[in-house]
Amino acid sequence: MLAKRIERLTSSLVRDILAVAQRPGVISFAGGLPADEALLNVDLSALSPELLSSAMQYGPTEGERGLREHVAARMAEIGLKCRADQVLILNGSQQGIDLVSKLMLEEGTPVLVEEPAYLAALQSFKLFGADLRTVPLQQGVNIDALAALMPSVNLAYLTPTFQNPSGYCYSEAERKSVAALVDTHGVCLFEDDPYRELAYDTPAPAPMVSFIQSALWIYQGSFSKTLAPGLRLGFLIAHPDLMPHLIRLKQAADLHSNRLSQLIVGQILASGQLAPHLAKSLPIYRERRDAMAAALQRHLAPYASWQVPAGGLFFWVKLAAVNDTLALMHQCLSNDLAIMPGVAFMAGGRDDGYVRLNFSHAKPELIECGIAKLAQLVSVQQKV
Amino acid sequence: MLAKRIERLTSSLVRDILAVAQRPGVISFAGGLPADEALLNVDLSALSPELLSSAMQYGPTEGERGLREHVAARMAEIGLKCRADQVLILNGSQQGIDLVSKLMLEEGTPVLVEEPAYLAALQSFKLFGADLRTVPLQQGVNIDALAALMPSVNLAYLTPTFQNPSGYCYSEAERKSVAALVDTHGVCLFEDDPYRELAYDTPAPAPMVSFIQSALWIYQGSFSKTLAPGLRLGFLIAHPDLMPHLIRLKQAADLHSNRLSQLIVGQILASGQLAPHLAKSLPIYRERRDAMAAALQRHLAPYASWQVPAGGLFFWVKLAAVNDTLALMHQCLSNDLAIMPGVAFMAGGRDDGYVRLNFSHAKPELIECGIAKLAQLVSVQQKV
Repeated sequence: MLAKRIERLTSSLVRDILAVAQRPGVISFAGGLPADEALLNVDLSALSPELLSSAMQYGPTEGERGLREHVAARMAEIGLKCRADQVLILNGSQQGIDLVSKLMLEEGTPVLVEEPAYLAALQSFKLFGADLRTVPLQQGVNIDALAALMPSVNLAYLTPTFQNPSGYCYSEAERKSVAALVDTHGVCLFEDDPYRELAYDTPAPAPMVSFIQSALWIYQGSFSKTLAPGLRLGFLIAHPDLMPHLIRLKQAADLHSNRLSQLIVGQILASGQLAPHLAKSLPIYRERRDAMAAALQRHLAPYASWQVPAGGLFFWVKLAAVNDTLALMHQCLSNDLAIMPGVAFMAGGRDDGYVRLNFSHAKPELIECGIAKLAQLVSVQQKV
Repeated sequence: MLAKRIERLTSSLVRDILAVAQRPGVISFAGGLPADEALLNVDLSALSPELLSSAMQYGPTEGERGLREHVAARMAEIGLKCRADQVLILNGSQQGIDLVSKLMLEEGTPVLVEEPAYLAALQSFKLFGADLRTVPLQQGVNIDALAALMPSVNLAYLTPTFQNPSGYCYSEAERKSVAALVDTHGVCLFEDDPYRELAYDTPAPAPMVSFIQSALWIYQGSFSKTLAPGLRLGFLIAHPDLMPHLIRLKQAADLHSNRLSQLIVGQILASGQLAPHLAKSLPIYRERRDAMAAALQRHLAPYASWQVPAGGLFFWVKLAAVNDTLALMHQCLSNDLAIMPGVAFMAGGRDDGYVRLNFSHAKPELIECGIAKLAQLVSVQQKV
């Protein structure tokens, strides 16, 4: 009686982990939560009563004009020229994945994804019946594998900047190579870019879609990591040919995004407060990344390998002697430690012994304590 | 290259009307906007800084616990007993239509809808490939026609209370009859109930789903009409068997709803401010309904027939000599008057000469002026 796609709604494993991770006393590296200390300190008194009151009525599906213009201007700064007409304000960038799934996918549509890739994107693509084709992304992207897959897919979903979970950031040369491939094969490129501003060492290269000449494309970003996820505000920018469809899909999904959040974020962008906010937040993230790097080096070096991520929110750690990361996750939970098993990010379901460790939410002293605990559990496993 | 469903995304006609309707100088009966004067006067100072700051982080997919409990308590008051666990907070009730479409529909799934019915529900169902089967709802619901269709459908979508566009409200006896039919035939009932609180004469009977014994069901409501559409906040309540799927679909769609809006509405419900707010708003709506009833009687009686709606936001007016309401709409627009052609609400696309006139947004003097203008245009048409 239910639609067939409901059978493809993957298990609630991850929801369960995240629920347990919130138990008092649990050290959680499981979620992707921004540091509480880096969240926007929302100043509602900055909003005029007139603006507030007008924001209570229905608004435009595309989003508030002023916010769309600020987003377009910000995009130009990072190398993606677009008009405000190409900006669609989203109820968080997860919604962009839903809209693009509706736009592009039906049962059996071949989609290129990285392996590993963002869990909730894989879930949405599967829900809509995608046939996922994977390109390995372990110690860098495999451009040859990517080139080999291109002729057989309609859509390529990539997170080229500080990817969740691998942390990998495509070089400018790699971005140009992939853009040339989608142009050659007429593949639509969907670039997911929520972590760009969380760059701890050097800024990321321009978006991959900015190097496209002829192919269709959708790019999306988020205010969840830079300002506050609770505001549920993201945006997408797309090739002009796709905009009318995406706007109608957004309208059918929820008419338009929350206007209060749009007002708050619009006011922050208009008054130039984003840069100072990031200048305050980034040191917090950098400190936690460095704390986790040090703790890993101190405790886990004999059992694991990893790259220190140049941005984003995660370490992607390969455990030498672990081949069942789900079992390890359960073991960790029994010891009040929450981690994400790498297998959850693999479209093919292979378990390569990776775990994803979030470094942004726990304070440095808890990071130290949690990594020591993980090392203890892994070392026992190694001996067995 | 795009998904086939995109061909079923209906034309932007209505978006175009609504865009034109906002032109200065246009009298608009086209949209379904609440009266500006009845919108929530949001008092952000009532929110504690601690609450505000905690609302900036990611939140639960199901919605804030306190808000879900208040919704469940409110439902009990109107005769629908449910647990807070059965409440899912939505980004406006349009999102419920999207989630239920995903839950129930695939290409060819037979769905019972009223004719006329809410335009954007028809659009969503069509997008997901539904085979729409219509039951007439002109001067009351045709229970025999409904009973005849029941054995052949999986889902019935009904708006039994002050329906958009017809304004019709099912009696308690009719509600019980339909509930018995869905029980007998094992059809899932989707009851859309955004207008319940906008009752100008007597309160509406208990929700139809409250009379169900065994069938699956989903009920949804909205804070858009009672408080403010810009907050984008609605809710659904469902049979316990459906909740796990609906929660996962919500998670895949946008992770969770805006927390600031949830905080604002939760605080209003907790402090008992909804009832006084409605006591202030309803007279505004009642006055405008009565103004339109009087204007229709004064100007349009020779050319049209209608029922005065006991609630909701619309008059559904049958024009005796008009058989192309789309042409009439264009004629009206040329004369700075916006109306909705009835054909847009008919799943079968038949034009029975109805127009939908919103009475909530325009002030009484503009209602008078707009109806006089409409009568003039219709009278000319009648003579031709």
